[in-house]
Amino acid sequence: MKIGILTIGNELTSGRTQDTNSSFLARAFATQGWQVTLMTSVGDEDRVIKQALGFILAQSDAVVVTGGLGPTADDMTTEAIARAFGLGLYMDQTVLRHIRGIFEKYHLNWTENNAKQAVFPEGAEVIANPVGTAAGFALKQKGKLIVVIPGVPREVERMLPEGVFPLLRREFPEAVQQVAVRTIKSFGLGEAVVDKALADLDFERLSVTVGFYPNFPENHIVLTARGATESEAVSRISAAEAGVVDRLKKYIFAYDSETLEGLAAKLMTEKGWTLAVAESCTGGLVTDRLTDVPGSSVFLERSVITYSNAAKTDLLGVPTAILEKYGAVSEQTARLMAEGVRKLACTDLGLAITGIAGPAGGTDQKPVGTVYIALADEKETLCRHYTFRWDRRRNKVISSQAALLLLKRYLSGEREDV
Amino acid sequence: MKIGILTIGNELTSGRTQDTNSSFLARAFATQGWQVTLMTSVGDEDRVIKQALGFILAQSDAVVVTGGLGPTADDMTTEAIARAFGLGLYMDQTVLRHIRGIFEKYHLNWTENNAKQAVFPEGAEVIANPVGTAAGFALKQKGKLIVVIPGVPREVERMLPEGVFPLLRREFPEAVQQVAVRTIKSFGLGEAVVDKALADLDFERLSVTVGFYPNFPENHIVLTARGATESEAVSRISAAEAGVVDRLKKYIFAYDSETLEGLAAKLMTEKGWTLAVAESCTGGLVTDRLTDVPGSSVFLERSVITYSNAAKTDLLGVPTAILEKYGAVSEQTARLMAEGVRKLACTDLGLAITGIAGPAGGTDQKPVGTVYIALADEKETLCRHYTFRWDRRRNKVISSQAALLLLKRYLSGEREDV
Repeated sequence: MKIGILTIGNELTSGRTQDTNSSFLARAFATQGWQVTLMTSVGDEDRVIKQALGFILAQSDAVVVTGGLGPTADDMTTEAIARAFGLGLYMDQTVLRHIRGIFEKYHLNWTENNAKQAVFPEGAEVIANPVGTAAGFALKQKGKLIVVIPGVPREVERMLPEGVFPLLRREFPEAVQQVAVRTIKSFGLGEAVVDKALADLDFERLSVTVGFYPNFPENHIVLTARGATESEAVSRISAAEAGVVDRLKKYIFAYDSETLEGLAAKLMTEKGWTLAVAESCTGGLVTDRLTDVPGSSVFLERSVITYSNAAKTDLLGVPTAILEKYGAVSEQTARLMAEGVRKLACTDLGLAITGIAGPAGGTDQKPVGTVYIALADEKETLCRHYTFRWDRRRNKVISSQAALLLLKRYLSGEREDV
Repeated sequence: MKIGILTIGNELTSGRTQDTNSSFLARAFATQGWQVTLMTSVGDEDRVIKQALGFILAQSDAVVVTGGLGPTADDMTTEAIARAFGLGLYMDQTVLRHIRGIFEKYHLNWTENNAKQAVFPEGAEVIANPVGTAAGFALKQKGKLIVVIPGVPREVERMLPEGVFPLLRREFPEAVQQVAVRTIKSFGLGEAVVDKALADLDFERLSVTVGFYPNFPENHIVLTARGATESEAVSRISAAEAGVVDRLKKYIFAYDSETLEGLAAKLMTEKGWTLAVAESCTGGLVTDRLTDVPGSSVFLERSVITYSNAAKTDLLGVPTAILEKYGAVSEQTARLMAEGVRKLACTDLGLAITGIAGPAGGTDQKPVGTVYIALADEKETLCRHYTFRWDRRRNKVISSQAALLLLKRYLSGEREDV
């Protein structure tokens, strides 16, 4: 099956917003074995929307449209599509009640322009939006399928598997193939190094396609295989996965939807242990990531962000003499911070990060990007030293990654790799 | 002048690579006052490239094409374009010598396929590539301009101002205009409410275009105006801006590249005051945002993330009796947290956030999204109560926004709006 993608919005053609939907949709369709013929972005302009629809449908069996379904005057996708096919509009009472219900539930002020989101072209099939007020819709015209969903990436991510895939499968049953996808998440190797390390793997022979997706500071390797049956697709993936794992080994930390903070949180919860964190250069980011995991309050007792030397002494008991002799960014200080926060919070583990995020504060001995990470338990304290080479924000992000990785490896008993 | 953008490459339509060139080009053209009609991505396929060129040129005065100029077999942009316009190909000897020179300089092995990069359609004007081997070219056909450059973002960034802009200005001298852009950042009103509040403003009469860009939890309003001179463009913007400010008033917190944390940090630094933060439901995010600002160590003394009740008592002195009577998520606790962290850290100000991020932990009286934010100075403690309605991550993000806004308004003396 050939699918075209049309994204609509002045924010795209003005360059104000980077269109990420097209690429996301193309990747998702590829996993189903469906080919994307072309992807087009146009502004909120009736005439161009119509022209683009005609052009795309001439090359494709179906077009998936995102954007322009909001309540404001510049959202004109529904009207433009209705006009393009000479269809009238109708108001769907079920959708209208649903939108009004959302407004009532959250005590939002109802304004009449919101009713616009319950208007559809005649003959359209509504596609429910589980995470927003803008429903999507589908139309069949001259054997071609037109699917329209909102442009908010979070809504696209939900509506694609829940609404769009089933619809496309129903309308084009002959195009349904079994597909297996495996995402392997690595950290610690550059994209070019990952690429080179896997260069001798003959993915083609295994009938597996491979994609590399940098997602700072992680590099994700995505394997996709198709087959007549699910088990055929899965067995192709398994062979390729074994090759990747063999080559990247300890640089792999997670698979598929797993996250580093999620894995660390899961291990903490399973063990029934408690954690306290002392952050300096990461400024709270390690704890922010851990607390993104629902239920993290079970193991996270507290964190302190000791930005000043006084706070390191008061809250963590790091002696002034140590700070003066070795500096706030040093192995000695990191170890005492981890031990101090553990003792202070009466937890099983103490995790500490101290470093220089930049852009200022670096010296010849300790350049910007110097980071010490320490993890203390009842018996001993581990400490790791890194020199990162990024800007302030990315030094914070990669430091938080290194800290969570140390914690995760410690918890899963990968001591040799810690 | 109307410009269409065509990006070419199988890596784009498969979703393997996110196309960033289109957005970069669109933004660059907008600064010149040139309108982008549409942006299309197609695979390396002769027929589709030809179709897309025809479609784009029907809507535009010029098309800028990136990608498919490499030396390998799947790079077929030059041949496809020559065929599309019925032109022959020629080898440019100057370009060939240039490419051979690069290979010699870096001791690279010459293979014959590299000569492909010196081949151009007949009548093409070569556009030099200062940072790679793939030169670009331009063609004039039936009054329309076709500009082709490589797809490597680093090369696009150099060739656009150095080669493409001068060419477009030369060919379309009447399209050279001055442009002014103003971004107005609001928080606290939904997109539909912002739209309605501005509905009576006649932007067209002011010769200003307006765009709405939701950037959770903020809504950005972008005004763009063109003029024969810069001052003409700026004065058009000013008139429209006054109208927007008059209607959105206190919901506006920043302009252009300003951020909420950046403004709060700037005010703290100017006043020479110090700050300590006590976070609960935001899990460190408020401090993470503040510490993204270089130099924040000047005013930020420390933060504590008191996830447990014990930590609220130990570190902030919130009495157990208060926690039992009113709960950890209450105005009483928020006030005592702000006052406690201020006292503990000996700072001028104490900021505290306590709430229920979800998905669990809500009750009828205190549903998920209930948040209390308190700010203590030497004399008094302000406290605000919110009920947000998002998922865990977004409840954290919007709570951090509300906390930073309270701080920023307090510091800038907007007491009535705090």
